[in-house]
Amino acid sequence: MSRFLDGKRNGLDPYVPGEQPKGGILIKLNTNESPFPPSERAVKAAEEAARNLQLYSDPECSLIREKLAETYSVGPENVLVTNGSDEALNFAFMAYCSENSPAVFPDITYGFYPVFCRLHSVPYREIPLKDDFTIDPDEYLGSGSMVVIANPNAPTGVELPVKDIEKIIRGNPDNIVLVDEAYVDFGAESCVGLISRYDNLLVVGTFSKSRFLAGARLGFVIGDAGLIADLDRIRNSTNPYNVNSMTMACGAAMLEDADYTNECCRIIKENREYTASKLRELGFCMPDSKANFVFAAHPEISGAEIYGRLRENGILVRHFDKERIRNFNRITIGTMEQMKQLISTLERILER
Amino acid sequence: MSRFLDGKRNGLDPYVPGEQPKGGILIKLNTNESPFPPSERAVKAAEEAARNLQLYSDPECSLIREKLAETYSVGPENVLVTNGSDEALNFAFMAYCSENSPAVFPDITYGFYPVFCRLHSVPYREIPLKDDFTIDPDEYLGSGSMVVIANPNAPTGVELPVKDIEKIIRGNPDNIVLVDEAYVDFGAESCVGLISRYDNLLVVGTFSKSRFLAGARLGFVIGDAGLIADLDRIRNSTNPYNVNSMTMACGAAMLEDADYTNECCRIIKENREYTASKLRELGFCMPDSKANFVFAAHPEISGAEIYGRLRENGILVRHFDKERIRNFNRITIGTMEQMKQLISTLERILER
Repeated sequence: MSRFLDGKRNGLDPYVPGEQPKGGILIKLNTNESPFPPSERAVKAAEEAARNLQLYSDPECSLIREKLAETYSVGPENVLVTNGSDEALNFAFMAYCSENSPAVFPDITYGFYPVFCRLHSVPYREIPLKDDFTIDPDEYLGSGSMVVIANPNAPTGVELPVKDIEKIIRGNPDNIVLVDEAYVDFGAESCVGLISRYDNLLVVGTFSKSRFLAGARLGFVIGDAGLIADLDRIRNSTNPYNVNSMTMACGAAMLEDADYTNECCRIIKENREYTASKLRELGFCMPDSKANFVFAAHPEISGAEIYGRLRENGILVRHFDKERIRNFNRITIGTMEQMKQLISTLERILER
Repeated sequence: MSRFLDGKRNGLDPYVPGEQPKGGILIKLNTNESPFPPSERAVKAAEEAARNLQLYSDPECSLIREKLAETYSVGPENVLVTNGSDEALNFAFMAYCSENSPAVFPDITYGFYPVFCRLHSVPYREIPLKDDFTIDPDEYLGSGSMVVIANPNAPTGVELPVKDIEKIIRGNPDNIVLVDEAYVDFGAESCVGLISRYDNLLVVGTFSKSRFLAGARLGFVIGDAGLIADLDRIRNSTNPYNVNSMTMACGAAMLEDADYTNECCRIIKENREYTASKLRELGFCMPDSKANFVFAAHPEISGAEIYGRLRENGILVRHFDKERIRNFNRITIGTMEQMKQLISTLERILER
């Protein structure tokens, strides 16, 4: 920190992304990446876009917005495109929160939400998940705050039924309810269908998980046209060319290759069910996951120890050193081969 | 604007980027893009990166930071990489300005600086350029503000000598001086050499102009390691994966192809001198440009009319409807063929 940093930034406690290991790791299951690569069509689209990079990217993001609108049966005016979904979240905090307009979210959820609050001096309240890691919608009614719900939640993988989310939306008619659906395509139900009925609902999505473009940085928001116009104002006051040409071209191609992504997501779900049942056989307990990861704890061996022993064996998972979840590890679902290796390694670790 | 938008965002007046025409324009000279495409090596690097987009981009941006450090003879700890240089500017305003820490810049300069101030509620003062569009460094001494200088300035193209910038840096020892060198590679002198001597200097650069990657969105900041650490904290509280894998790979390749970019920049400078002399023959007056554009006014025909007549003829330039510069147009330097067509079109327009 330099002597020039403005006082209001002193308290910043940045987000720490999952490690991107430089070597020694054989199986990387720590950042919920897909084991499947982008389609050939997406690679080709990126290459074609690369040939014209001397020109600015389309600041209106017209093509990719139209494709997203088609995919989600909404209008292009209901879609904003961002440099990863973290940027979408940041814009929402900037638009709807301030020193006087707080936010509320669960105590166990995506760790970036409190970071945005600190960045923008937004007071926030964390509502504890129930012991089984589910959300009680009644605790979010009349919150007087922007409500942020990851669904399925991370790092637990637990889904909140759409009817419960709708209850929260109706229970906060004068505040935004932001549903972060980063993991929705692995078996949960989306809230996008509700946007035509509620002008206070924002649904955030990403191409990082179920569309295999984590490295391209492509996120989006779907919501009432008035809300999208708000966020677009923030975007145009921040970084109007926020998404590059290659990423938009790749993203559009991946939407055209929905058969491919759907089939890969089906395999990931199958591998998740296999992994969950094998882990349970080994004595692990975990909530039912609707995401591309499982969140597992063992009664006899600490989360940190499992993390460390897996790492020694070249398998990287994610451990959060945080109250209530210290005993768990979040394990990304990879290929069947990777999952089998994970299970056999855990078998060896548990034998000791 | 929705009823939910936070009160402090009501006054936002977003930046308006140069038009990206969808049709009818034959020669696009309005956003200072290069007429030369990225190198084959850069295209290949993008394609290779695209094949692994299922993995997150390196949040430390190690490779591209090392290549930039090498290019500018600084350490990697002196380099921050951003999603275009607008993001770099935004981070600097976030780090060093606030309601209580103002900014100062010329009245005629890059139009995004006041937008950032409004976004972050930063008071700002605009110091008028002299009548010949030059900056008087004495007016910036002891400013008590973050000083922002585009060098060469946009949209004028006028260079401020490094010794004058150094005077401003020394005259503001307790404030940041940010030098925005977007256009420096077209004939001006860079301040990067000063960063080891001044801990209050930030130099911002971009790959959009002299490295032909406007559509890839790649900017950077060079400065004292303490300042870079400040900006990195902001980055990690905003969007830790701010630059995608394809862009970083492309950017690194373009740095390796310096012979190509240098030769193209040489041609652009040559075309600029040709264009400036032909425009002067036609009666235009303009300041000496050290950028990849000229800023020209005609004594007999208004800037808006020239803009409109060029547009009717399929040539798009940029006109700013702003006091003091209303009579000017900013004309990007393209290929010699494009410049000849511009000149012959202007000849016809002036004959009337």
